[in-house]
Amino acid sequence: MKLVSSRDNPLYKRLLKVAGGKRDPAADRSEAGYRVLLEGIHLCQSWLEHAGEPELALFDALRLESHEELRALARKLRSEACIGLDPRLAAGLSQVGHGQGVYFLVRAPAPEQPARIDHNCIWLDRIQDPGNVGTLLRTAAAAGLRHAYLSPGCAAAWSAKVLRSAQGAHFALSIHEHVDLQAACDRLRVPLVATALSDAASLYAAQLPRDCAWVLGNEGQGVAAELLARADLRVFVPQAENVESLNVAVAAGVCLFEQRRQWVHSPRNASAGRSAGV
Amino acid sequence: MKLVSSRDNPLYKRLLKVAGGKRDPAADRSEAGYRVLLEGIHLCQSWLEHAGEPELALFDALRLESHEELRALARKLRSEACIGLDPRLAAGLSQVGHGQGVYFLVRAPAPEQPARIDHNCIWLDRIQDPGNVGTLLRTAAAAGLRHAYLSPGCAAAWSAKVLRSAQGAHFALSIHEHVDLQAACDRLRVPLVATALSDAASLYAAQLPRDCAWVLGNEGQGVAAELLARADLRVFVPQAENVESLNVAVAAGVCLFEQRRQWVHSPRNASAGRSAGV
Repeated sequence: MKLVSSRDNPLYKRLLKVAGGKRDPAADRSEAGYRVLLEGIHLCQSWLEHAGEPELALFDALRLESHEELRALARKLRSEACIGLDPRLAAGLSQVGHGQGVYFLVRAPAPEQPARIDHNCIWLDRIQDPGNVGTLLRTAAAAGLRHAYLSPGCAAAWSAKVLRSAQGAHFALSIHEHVDLQAACDRLRVPLVATALSDAASLYAAQLPRDCAWVLGNEGQGVAAELLARADLRVFVPQAENVESLNVAVAAGVCLFEQRRQWVHSPRNASAGRSAGV
Repeated sequence: MKLVSSRDNPLYKRLLKVAGGKRDPAADRSEAGYRVLLEGIHLCQSWLEHAGEPELALFDALRLESHEELRALARKLRSEACIGLDPRLAAGLSQVGHGQGVYFLVRAPAPEQPARIDHNCIWLDRIQDPGNVGTLLRTAAAAGLRHAYLSPGCAAAWSAKVLRSAQGAHFALSIHEHVDLQAACDRLRVPLVATALSDAASLYAAQLPRDCAWVLGNEGQGVAAELLARADLRVFVPQAENVESLNVAVAAGVCLFEQRRQWVHSPRNASAGRSAGV
């Protein structure tokens, strides 16, 4: 296993850039997907299980000697892909303070966008906070969705903070980033349902579509006016008066699980839910 | 207005401690409520409106001269309570990076605990993440609750991060901290409903109580076994298989709004909801 022990090593400098959320200096502009540094045993194991081998695996060289879980992980990888790092250098890449001594350098998946959007999905319109994006993905996965479409202006889906909040949802979803949501409307074959605070119907007033595109909007400004105008249904979560509206991820949870309640858990639809495997 | 321009000023040293979430060195052990430093125009205005004058108001002396909103705020306060800070000193107190140049030093409210808990409320059992505590308070306020009971081990309710996530919910709720939830069970006059992942009923399977104490548990460990054992009802949110469970604040949102749906928004209960003013 190759060992890196100098801060001036070009690979290490590159890793520091990627860890800091900057553009990979070694990336080709034509490449699909940006590079990210995944951190921690659980996340790296999940990557290996769902997405295959990383481009590189970086190990704290000292910990690798004594830590059985790290050794087991290394044994599953091609030895050319594994690099040992001086412990101080390994610690310098950590985004969490107490790292576990392993990182995967990977390219963020850039799944092909389906020609027709005919499935239940969430659309995130400029959700800026990484914690919100992560919690939205986690909530969507828990509600049984398989696709998320993120506009430009959303926090980068594969960044460390989003990964942390999403708790593995990245591996249950196809996450499409930098999607022009306006243009995507033309490919929609299910209703577009927007959450909105005004000119909207109560979430509980109507039968929700079984499959739809749920669009959730920016924390301060809500869903963009052009998207609101194209929505087939605008809903709000009826709440107590004189208090701030719900956090966007909580609002999404209430909406998605109300849809599940209507389609999967209400007595008249229970058999439909079971046969659809949701 | 008194002006402070030295980092060695004893008051400034004290403010730095409080801003950093440390114990106020000037606090008397017998005092109820810990001191916190509220930051920003909106939060300070809300405090003034709902809780009255702060112990001290600290202004960036330079910005106060030119910023009309700051001047308007200062005019509402006793001049003895207002202190000007050198701009560098004012910036040093900020928890958000780009502060607005105003801070209130206040004592966190410590409302008296009711002898009987006979209202709809949330109980937080060792919720550690400040963002989660804040979002839970925001969600509870939006669902029309008026009381929150926090066990020891929860993030401090009046800390900067919790205040930021809660978006003003602190002023819509009585927040009881350091509550022995086991002991509080004896004062309960409504059912105790716990969210749990096993040995629990589907949220949608039963009529929920109109008023109850909803207990939400630690992010990793869930609700403590002793509290689970005393619960009148244990519920889970039915979700897709093979994915991580919901974030605790999202789970709370789904539960509280399902309760609202059943009691306030279902056709047969609409009149009851209206007459109760919820």
